[in-house]
Amino acid sequence: MKSDIILLGHGSGGKLSHQLLDELIIPILSQVPLGEQNDAALLPAQTGRLAFTTDSYVVDPIFFPGGDIGDLAVNGTVNDLAMAGARPLALSVGFILEEGLPILDLKRILESMAHAAKAASVTIVTGDTKVVPRGKGDKLFINTSGIGVIEHDLQISGNAARPGDKILINGSIGDHGMAILASREGLALTSKIETDSAPLNGLVADLVKALGSGLHVLRDPTRGGVATTLKEIALQSGTELTLDESSLPVNPPVQGACAILGLDPLFVANEGKLLAIVSADQAHQALEVMRRHPQGAAAVIIGEVSDSKPGKVFIKTAIGGRRSVEMLAGEQLPRIC
Amino acid sequence: MKSDIILLGHGSGGKLSHQLLDELIIPILSQVPLGEQNDAALLPAQTGRLAFTTDSYVVDPIFFPGGDIGDLAVNGTVNDLAMAGARPLALSVGFILEEGLPILDLKRILESMAHAAKAASVTIVTGDTKVVPRGKGDKLFINTSGIGVIEHDLQISGNAARPGDKILINGSIGDHGMAILASREGLALTSKIETDSAPLNGLVADLVKALGSGLHVLRDPTRGGVATTLKEIALQSGTELTLDESSLPVNPPVQGACAILGLDPLFVANEGKLLAIVSADQAHQALEVMRRHPQGAAAVIIGEVSDSKPGKVFIKTAIGGRRSVEMLAGEQLPRIC
Repeated sequence: MKSDIILLGHGSGGKLSHQLLDELIIPILSQVPLGEQNDAALLPAQTGRLAFTTDSYVVDPIFFPGGDIGDLAVNGTVNDLAMAGARPLALSVGFILEEGLPILDLKRILESMAHAAKAASVTIVTGDTKVVPRGKGDKLFINTSGIGVIEHDLQISGNAARPGDKILINGSIGDHGMAILASREGLALTSKIETDSAPLNGLVADLVKALGSGLHVLRDPTRGGVATTLKEIALQSGTELTLDESSLPVNPPVQGACAILGLDPLFVANEGKLLAIVSADQAHQALEVMRRHPQGAAAVIIGEVSDSKPGKVFIKTAIGGRRSVEMLAGEQLPRIC
Repeated sequence: MKSDIILLGHGSGGKLSHQLLDELIIPILSQVPLGEQNDAALLPAQTGRLAFTTDSYVVDPIFFPGGDIGDLAVNGTVNDLAMAGARPLALSVGFILEEGLPILDLKRILESMAHAAKAASVTIVTGDTKVVPRGKGDKLFINTSGIGVIEHDLQISGNAARPGDKILINGSIGDHGMAILASREGLALTSKIETDSAPLNGLVADLVKALGSGLHVLRDPTRGGVATTLKEIALQSGTELTLDESSLPVNPPVQGACAILGLDPLFVANEGKLLAIVSADQAHQALEVMRRHPQGAAAVIIGEVSDSKPGKVFIKTAIGGRRSVEMLAGEQLPRIC
């Protein structure tokens, strides 16, 4: 690359754009040869329903403990496909770069995306790059969209929770959000908090295979945290969800940072966690399947579904109380993903 | 909506996000009922190869003569699918909103997207909304990604141009870019220049049906204009492309504005144009098919393919000269789409 920062011309569609693509983006992200670059990528015909999802990433800072905006963008979209019970097939990536972004920062993020895509067994097949003038963006924003194929007949959906079902999570809550916040605010913590960003498609494939129609709901509790996600499921399915507070796994540094900042880890974003709602008779089987997978080693049952108060979420507190949980109101942590 | 501008909280994933979605975005863009909102949209199984594409839109200004960032984003992604010979099936939309954006501006853009999607017979099935603080974005950026299905066996690709083929375009060049520039710079032109933004999937379907394997290349000359797009095709296919300057359709106000600003319409972006490269014996049939379609009424044959100088593009000038055409160097018109 002739320039060591991004110039407006890198978004022109002309020579500089082609240079950026041919010398940096395509060699790192893709195996598509020069002669086959067209306006759309082609994928072979698929047998099965398709899942389609999109997410834009505007996280600040773009580098943080345990990850960066690049692997976050890949894992996030992989996970949204996985939550539909789909096998992720292909991702697209759209960059909005701010003029002046160091090429080395972009390179590091591209490498992180390539690494994450490989880890999740998904390919990045198409992309787009735009550049905005200094002060009209913030370093870089990334959109990742994804196509997955559903190779079973299960109806996994937020509206499929049934009274009696058990609620499971694959590990500790609040790590991603607190990693971002601690890094942004320069909190001097004794223990480093790292993002939990990880691909969950392998874990989901194991659950689908083992549980079949006993697997009712899968949802990743990202923005808004576990509380907001459970409230969405309660509303969608017309059931009551009750959590057992003492069973909720929270890493001590996250607990500590939340206490200092007056935040509730239940509302803090996760990027490598899933909530699974399964039929009661398969709950322990689900737990075992999760615990055998690297992404589910710390899985626990955290609550259950009933038909008492449709649309409500309650927490049984450690001292025997019971409080209602609502969605996150307003903006607890801006630009967390 | 309780606020008349976008707040950071509208991107939190919590209550305000849900309100924005449920009261504004979903009612205008989508028919998905509340109980069926999941992390990914489901599409029925398809027979045929799939096309997948993505584009982010950062155009400035967001409203311009003949359109806005919303219909531009829908048409642009519809057209990228069409250029692969695909029938557009579903779009995703990712918004990056700047804090302070008037809700009424967002509403107007959503309505324009819904209108464009309807006109192109495509549905918007999934989406995402992020909010960045004032000064970290610019009003709004939109990513649209799209899935299409290819219901034939043709290999339409930039590498499929063959010596002897004819090059066609469906109408005048440079309208979109000059509409943006004139509106941004406040040029006082005697005739208004409007964007040519339009969906081209209907026109492409007619061409596919009529020409079959005689249809070799389809490409929409957006950023970088006709010149850059032809140069890409010449490189991809290893052929020489020669244009006849006198045949290139340019609307007089565009010609005039380009002359004032020292721009060449060959390098100015289009958003409702396609270049089709077809076998010589079907060129007149292609022209007739185009002219029968509302998006192709002003179609013309503008040049031909040879094997003389692989990778080169030449223009035969009106006075009998011949000059080489290269890709747009640097940034002629930033934030044109």
